[in-house]
Amino acid sequence: MGSMRPHILIIGCGFGGLEAARALSGADVDVTVVDKTNHHLFQPLLYQVATAGLSAPSIAAPIRHLFRRQRNVTTLLGEVVAIDAQGKTATLRDGALLRWDHLIVAAGATHSYFGRDDWAPFAPGLKTLADAFEIRRRVLMAFEAAEREDDPARRAALLQFVVVGAGPTGVELAGTFAEIARHTLPGEFRRIDPRQARVLLVEGGPRVLAAMPESLSERAREQLTALGVEVKLGARVTGIDAEGLDVATSAGSERLLSRCIVWAAGVAASPLGRALAEATGCTLDRAGRVVVEPDLSLKGNPAIQVIGDLAAAQSHAPGKQPRPVPGVSPGAKQMGRCAAANILRRVRGEATQAFRYADYGNLATIGRNSAVVDLGSPAGPLRFSGYFAWLFWLFAHVYFLIGYRNRFVVLLDWAWAYWTYDRGARVVANAGSAQLSEASPASDAQA
Amino acid sequence: MGSMRPHILIIGCGFGGLEAARALSGADVDVTVVDKTNHHLFQPLLYQVATAGLSAPSIAAPIRHLFRRQRNVTTLLGEVVAIDAQGKTATLRDGALLRWDHLIVAAGATHSYFGRDDWAPFAPGLKTLADAFEIRRRVLMAFEAAEREDDPARRAALLQFVVVGAGPTGVELAGTFAEIARHTLPGEFRRIDPRQARVLLVEGGPRVLAAMPESLSERAREQLTALGVEVKLGARVTGIDAEGLDVATSAGSERLLSRCIVWAAGVAASPLGRALAEATGCTLDRAGRVVVEPDLSLKGNPAIQVIGDLAAAQSHAPGKQPRPVPGVSPGAKQMGRCAAANILRRVRGEATQAFRYADYGNLATIGRNSAVVDLGSPAGPLRFSGYFAWLFWLFAHVYFLIGYRNRFVVLLDWAWAYWTYDRGARVVANAGSAQLSEASPASDAQA
Repeated sequence: MGSMRPHILIIGCGFGGLEAARALSGADVDVTVVDKTNHHLFQPLLYQVATAGLSAPSIAAPIRHLFRRQRNVTTLLGEVVAIDAQGKTATLRDGALLRWDHLIVAAGATHSYFGRDDWAPFAPGLKTLADAFEIRRRVLMAFEAAEREDDPARRAALLQFVVVGAGPTGVELAGTFAEIARHTLPGEFRRIDPRQARVLLVEGGPRVLAAMPESLSERAREQLTALGVEVKLGARVTGIDAEGLDVATSAGSERLLSRCIVWAAGVAASPLGRALAEATGCTLDRAGRVVVEPDLSLKGNPAIQVIGDLAAAQSHAPGKQPRPVPGVSPGAKQMGRCAAANILRRVRGEATQAFRYADYGNLATIGRNSAVVDLGSPAGPLRFSGYFAWLFWLFAHVYFLIGYRNRFVVLLDWAWAYWTYDRGARVVANAGSAQLSEASPASDAQA
Repeated sequence: MGSMRPHILIIGCGFGGLEAARALSGADVDVTVVDKTNHHLFQPLLYQVATAGLSAPSIAAPIRHLFRRQRNVTTLLGEVVAIDAQGKTATLRDGALLRWDHLIVAAGATHSYFGRDDWAPFAPGLKTLADAFEIRRRVLMAFEAAEREDDPARRAALLQFVVVGAGPTGVELAGTFAEIARHTLPGEFRRIDPRQARVLLVEGGPRVLAAMPESLSERAREQLTALGVEVKLGARVTGIDAEGLDVATSAGSERLLSRCIVWAAGVAASPLGRALAEATGCTLDRAGRVVVEPDLSLKGNPAIQVIGDLAAAQSHAPGKQPRPVPGVSPGAKQMGRCAAANILRRVRGEATQAFRYADYGNLATIGRNSAVVDLGSPAGPLRFSGYFAWLFWLFAHVYFLIGYRNRFVVLLDWAWAYWTYDRGARVVANAGSAQLSEASPASDAQA
């Protein structure tokens, strides 16, 4: 790399990091993108991998393949564990040092068990492909174990699926679990009836999809119920173990037996936020996100920008109060473009600009033929739900999928799944019968 | 299950077990198919999953989905560890007992390190999806590590790939590795040139594809060389460790440094063969395969049939000497049909028939545009190689893929890969940088 050119290090290649690197295309700078994995993941469809609707390659693109034509980008596989703001270096887990002149930290978020990490083995979250494979394995293995179980009580427990948290991911998972039990699996078992499976969606708050307008939350709850999901609102999880979970409601507390619990309740910023705080003394909010300046840089460290789910950023629209940026992919992408542009301004000696979030609305899918859409439009909010919302959601997501081929294969898979109710990716790589009843590490992954 | 009807237990749902169960469709019997995994695997294309050309769901179909319309089949996920020939039961690893009136053992084969199982962690074989994911991970991670390696010698070692054994699988893997290094990855790396990767195919015997006629073996060797594979014939492996392997030739012995070694040299019958020998006193051949009667049953235990790679079976053509059946999928399928038919004959009190293998020829692919085909025809052997052999191989394999959708997706993936040289499944689920240099268990699998 030409050592005279400014070197920009981007940590993390999610929506924010990818967009930032692309925004630096053609600029007279050297860019290094470092990520823990070799692929950019299309997070909004990860639940489809977890529910065997899509294979992993359909929603994951090799990062270096995405940058093959952008000659000023070098892709490295590695995990950054420490940052030195004075020395301008980042340290990888294996000790290697990466130097930088400007830094963009886009390390994203992970799931949080609110201090109860001991729940993790019994209730995996959904952030990575490995998570998705583990959830897929647990769901499919629960039905397999039920087919072999003679004791009615144990069989019923095996056929009880619990999703904790009714945000977009929780709603998508619960809706799809119900679809699998009611439409995909019936007819394939001889001793059990998969339709007898219970799918519960447990939410501590008063409604599902809290980020949505109340009317759409209500529509979503109705659609979930229609799909066969039992929605428990105002239900706080007080304990999770290998046999099930304890839930507290105003009515009292309840024990739910389940071998397949998915955690979709809490999100926490990447641990790199803490590392950044130690290195720079920057402030973290309660979710561990890094509080940034209006231009997304760190107070006192203008060479460091933080974007995406790791950033506690505000949108600064002229003549309006600053508003927090929601943790959605358009927000991360826009921050990526803004951070890249501000770095180039600094390189040119110009003043940086404040970040302004353009809100194009909010989508969530619930399951087959059902979704809710909330679009801001000049004529005021445009809200709809049901079949057309689902079609809108489907094409919006397929359109934004990285890589033309993926889009095509995903559409194909969905067209097939739609007409046949089949789910083509119901494959578990290592499901020895010995594992049937054991919790196993998320590294037991498959395609 | 109607307990008056004969109950047929089929152990293993590879080509033999699947075909046997299908041949019992509509018969007045109850069938239970038990397999260690939840999917039937199209073995001939497994190397494409290992080399990131196909995603796992493209070549694996959920077993119970394949039998959803065959009402007399019950599918169970479980691993049979013991068989009681007198009590007519099979024991699963978790202790559960399965009763049977007639038994078909189709447990297949695994790879053998010729008594050197300590080599396994350094040179995985290719039999299961988990194996394929592990090989995919090692190949892709080797290039990633090389991009980060500054020491030229270590870098060269990382870019050296060794396949041991030049049977069909070894030839396919070596040819595809060379294609990846020469056509797929160039342009995506900034510090290394993937074209400098060395792919070695190490074979102890005097030629590649020993099962093929000598002329085709020679053509295959030429095509491998043209693809960039270095073929070492008459080279015996004497040691494998984390750094590389030792090879002995008539010219002396050689040390080959490599972080990515694949074992395609030895096949051994499933351990269930030994369990069967203990239970029935049947004889095993040197590869651990079960010696069967002409009708594929066990001597003295007519209710037990052994088929597929686990059986040392002979083909009995009228007026000809019995000939051993080759370990190929058509052989397994034909044995499956024969065993099912013979069981129905016994149920009806008729005499069983001897197995006769119909040999439709032999195919092997080497890489892009190259394959060898050896067909028996009434007009004598029909042999050809190169582009048309490759097309013939391609369509023959896609045609036999289980499930229409898979065929379509596979053709799509290949059409794409053919024109773009891209390999769509280059995704590694858990490739933490810490793992880059470590051998990791085959259970680290991904899509």
